[in-house]
Amino acid sequence: MAQFSTQDYAMMLRAIKLAQRGIYTTAPNPNVGCVITNGEEIVGEGFHARAGEPHAEVHALRMAGDKAQGATAYVTLEPCSHYGRTPPCAEGLIKAKVAKVICAMQDPNPQVAGRGIQMLRDAGIEVQVGLLEADARALNPAFIKRMESGNPYVQLKMAASLDGQTALANGQSQWITSPQARQDVQSLRAKSGAILSTSKTVIDDNASLNVRWHDLPTSVQAIYPQEALRQPLRVILDRQNQLQDELKLFSVEGEVVRVGEQGDLVPQLDASGHIELRHLLTTLVTEHNVNHLWVEAGATLASSLIKQGLVDELVIYLAPKLMGSDGRGLVGALGLTAMYQVIDLEIKELKQVGPDIRITATPIYKEQ
Amino acid sequence: MAQFSTQDYAMMLRAIKLAQRGIYTTAPNPNVGCVITNGEEIVGEGFHARAGEPHAEVHALRMAGDKAQGATAYVTLEPCSHYGRTPPCAEGLIKAKVAKVICAMQDPNPQVAGRGIQMLRDAGIEVQVGLLEADARALNPAFIKRMESGNPYVQLKMAASLDGQTALANGQSQWITSPQARQDVQSLRAKSGAILSTSKTVIDDNASLNVRWHDLPTSVQAIYPQEALRQPLRVILDRQNQLQDELKLFSVEGEVVRVGEQGDLVPQLDASGHIELRHLLTTLVTEHNVNHLWVEAGATLASSLIKQGLVDELVIYLAPKLMGSDGRGLVGALGLTAMYQVIDLEIKELKQVGPDIRITATPIYKEQ
Repeated sequence: MAQFSTQDYAMMLRAIKLAQRGIYTTAPNPNVGCVITNGEEIVGEGFHARAGEPHAEVHALRMAGDKAQGATAYVTLEPCSHYGRTPPCAEGLIKAKVAKVICAMQDPNPQVAGRGIQMLRDAGIEVQVGLLEADARALNPAFIKRMESGNPYVQLKMAASLDGQTALANGQSQWITSPQARQDVQSLRAKSGAILSTSKTVIDDNASLNVRWHDLPTSVQAIYPQEALRQPLRVILDRQNQLQDELKLFSVEGEVVRVGEQGDLVPQLDASGHIELRHLLTTLVTEHNVNHLWVEAGATLASSLIKQGLVDELVIYLAPKLMGSDGRGLVGALGLTAMYQVIDLEIKELKQVGPDIRITATPIYKEQ
Repeated sequence: MAQFSTQDYAMMLRAIKLAQRGIYTTAPNPNVGCVITNGEEIVGEGFHARAGEPHAEVHALRMAGDKAQGATAYVTLEPCSHYGRTPPCAEGLIKAKVAKVICAMQDPNPQVAGRGIQMLRDAGIEVQVGLLEADARALNPAFIKRMESGNPYVQLKMAASLDGQTALANGQSQWITSPQARQDVQSLRAKSGAILSTSKTVIDDNASLNVRWHDLPTSVQAIYPQEALRQPLRVILDRQNQLQDELKLFSVEGEVVRVGEQGDLVPQLDASGHIELRHLLTTLVTEHNVNHLWVEAGATLASSLIKQGLVDELVIYLAPKLMGSDGRGLVGALGLTAMYQVIDLEIKELKQVGPDIRITATPIYKEQ
């Protein structure tokens, strides 16, 4: 195991902070940051901002110029080794004659997977891997999941009263959560590559399911200029072909994919005639380049995804209200008859968002 | 408004910390702490530990001895002016010839209500009132509520899965919450003067509803010796006379009050034949000297108390589990038809207790 110095930690943290500046814009590319030091001086730095634009290392090398010679480059992800829309970054670092490269993690992309590191070592550059790896992985949960499994990272948003109701018995639900919670949802939508919902949800609320820059928290607006606004793909389950053209969904910017026998994407069905959700998710990766799927839908789709073990993270907003058990439940009927069958979650984060509570949790899927 | 010095603040904080040491044992008396300083030296201090035992001022004066002369006494509550089981503390301070008394708050007890302060002033002692008053009030929410309104302070405990279910459809519910949450419940029970429940809850779980010293968190055990264990009164609604003698409820230490036409306490009924809960609560004050009522019961009693505006604080444990909307709801059916009718809460505290979430909230009762 390589020993890292205090300066190494500080520089990699700086590179991670830089990488975070791309979280709203790089999809489907990963977030990457790079810092180049010559002795104690930072001579170059940069981050990847958008697919098709230069990688982090390119920005940092351009800034460093001649000072890159003999320098140390800190990169949050292994430099790429393949020709994509840009030449391989490993090659750029070799040409610039850096002496040492420290990467936080190996690239999970099977097209790279250690080849970038090998290229550098073959060129005589000292390479160390694994500095602040957990923090670097946290930059790109969706990119990593896709690369490692071929499936998108699925975040399921839910909102209910403290007693778990999403609507009154008559369907009234506007608004359970606060404007602050809805603003928070905007910033989480904005990070995703696609938003999955159903025609029922879209029609009931005439929901546009887009990202509205003016509704983003000011902290997000500060690092996400309006002119860079990227709309996640909106994927709507619409087997009965119910989506009418006059819906707000179609009047706002951004692409919509209707899933249905007469839609843009014809889903596989299982033996009982339901959409094969697992297959649909894989199709979103292969045909639409989606790493990160944000799901906003009703109890039926939510519980299907959970029961099938397809959810990576639940984001649950609980409003400080009691609505009574005669309302509509957060997840559908699960038909459980013994406590060992309940779906266990692990709480990752607990915070107040305005007057509401936001719980981020991971389902603990039991062995089959 | 009196100006207080840094030493004043420090000493009153110390008195408040001392007062807290009595929180498990003083009921139905208030928690009070006292510090006596002579110049910069602390010459005496004490707290009230148990009804019938000396008040905080008596402990502090005994410790100070002759050094109380010309000293300043910091008391978290106005010194008492009446002869109860102990002589009035105001008299004790006068006899000891203290020069100055600083109280955090006036006593809400109508038997005192400024008379203690007046006694001191009449004896030529300088008195200041209001230092850290909010913190001092927080020591005794139940005592203050009772003195100001004649009603007990009602804390309603609830526990559910994250989707608001308290049991599966078949009634299975052991255990939704974690051992840590159940330990936390023990420490909250231990602070109360009485526990209110129903024969159904007692019978379903064969619940003893007592305080088990060995189940208290070690942090509580440290300030609450086993030999000082005080059992809250257990008040059980049992109109059908269903409580059998062999229940655990009766085999453990502590007093039980059965509420029912053939019980120990015969309740008033309303026009529709239900127990007049508001009247019952007042009776618990007048006949059983209860300031602080802790409620552990099912959805029916919980929602009745909430709907009638009788709950001061909800303590809700949410376990990281999904149980499905076909289970049993946290509160009963409320029959709401419009969002403005929902019961709004204000969240006071949010914390993790082991794997579970504990939410402390106050109902916001709308104007009638």
